[in-house]
Amino acid sequence: MTKGRFISLEGGEGTGKSTQVKALASALETKGYKVNVTREPGGTPGAEVIRDLLLSGADEKWHMRTEALLFAAARAEHCAKLIRPALDRGEWVISDRFIDSSRAYQTGGDQLTDREIMALHEVGSGALMPDRTFVLDLPEAVAAKRAEARDRGDSDRIGGRDSAYHRSVMQRFRQFAADEPDRIRLIDASQAVEPITELLLQNLGDMMA
Amino acid sequence: MTKGRFISLEGGEGTGKSTQVKALASALETKGYKVNVTREPGGTPGAEVIRDLLLSGADEKWHMRTEALLFAAARAEHCAKLIRPALDRGEWVISDRFIDSSRAYQTGGDQLTDREIMALHEVGSGALMPDRTFVLDLPEAVAAKRAEARDRGDSDRIGGRDSAYHRSVMQRFRQFAADEPDRIRLIDASQAVEPITELLLQNLGDMMA
Repeated sequence: MTKGRFISLEGGEGTGKSTQVKALASALETKGYKVNVTREPGGTPGAEVIRDLLLSGADEKWHMRTEALLFAAARAEHCAKLIRPALDRGEWVISDRFIDSSRAYQTGGDQLTDREIMALHEVGSGALMPDRTFVLDLPEAVAAKRAEARDRGDSDRIGGRDSAYHRSVMQRFRQFAADEPDRIRLIDASQAVEPITELLLQNLGDMMA
Repeated sequence: MTKGRFISLEGGEGTGKSTQVKALASALETKGYKVNVTREPGGTPGAEVIRDLLLSGADEKWHMRTEALLFAAARAEHCAKLIRPALDRGEWVISDRFIDSSRAYQTGGDQLTDREIMALHEVGSGALMPDRTFVLDLPEAVAAKRAEARDRGDSDRIGGRDSAYHRSVMQRFRQFAADEPDRIRLIDASQAVEPITELLLQNLGDMMA
């Protein structure tokens, strides 16, 4: 049995994460791997209930520390009931968002510190980290255009925050990639779907030996 | 303006906590204090939604670490939106359960450590502690009789756990009182309602100066 691998895709709203999660899973299945596709917040029935609490309603619905704890709670459930069991079976897991989203979205300004987010992740999920993380990155101009569409109301409780917030989230993602180049790869998301998937596969070459 | 005081009542199921919370609040109001009565999990609209997730359904509904994070999330909301603002206004807060319930119910066996529970409380609520905590304690025989009633099904997701669990919870509460005699006072809950309330008031004498 091969070792299970855990891959996460990260990035702002509308960078094409869910499209790439599906395309990558399909490409890996073609190569004979058993792949579990999942997402955060959510991924298990209980965690999806917490997702709904987090993403619906007005922004002031939750205090920022409550929000961080609810994300950590959903993640604990997801790790215990889906991700770890799949990895233990030697399968792959590809998650649309994981811990780096909490690190990017729930820190900065008067929010939590990265150390606090990681303390919650340690208690909740034994600090489980992906084997590889792809940050899908878009040029500022394209991101701004998508933000406009977002501002027209087609967005959830967190996606609907202002452009300055989303720019600072994206800057944090880029910084993570710079800080942890082995785990986190920054991917230019302005290309077409297929070349991006090809790039992800190339960046997983060391895991498919 | 007098300084606001934060009092919590703790103990097993059916030890008379909510009766004493009300009686104590009423006695303090008679003395001219403004008193906010609340409970955990819950106390604010958002925290009450989390309470419902925690107390309804089957025990296996949540992984033990998810459960601990959900309690911490409800508490963060409660501290930020109700307890701290009331204390800042110079008012009293009396809560039916607080952090010591998480320390008693979510530790032990293969559950979390006390240090982990306190780490969540630090990140979620700045480790806010009550000024005084009363643990309502019942003799084993009385507790066992009430446990029988509980086992007949008139109980929630956590209250419905077995007697050995509830005995160990009570032992932890007694240990907390031994470890922190200044903050935590063990109260014999087998007496009638009025003498207990009188005892609580006596044990708050130093706070009403």
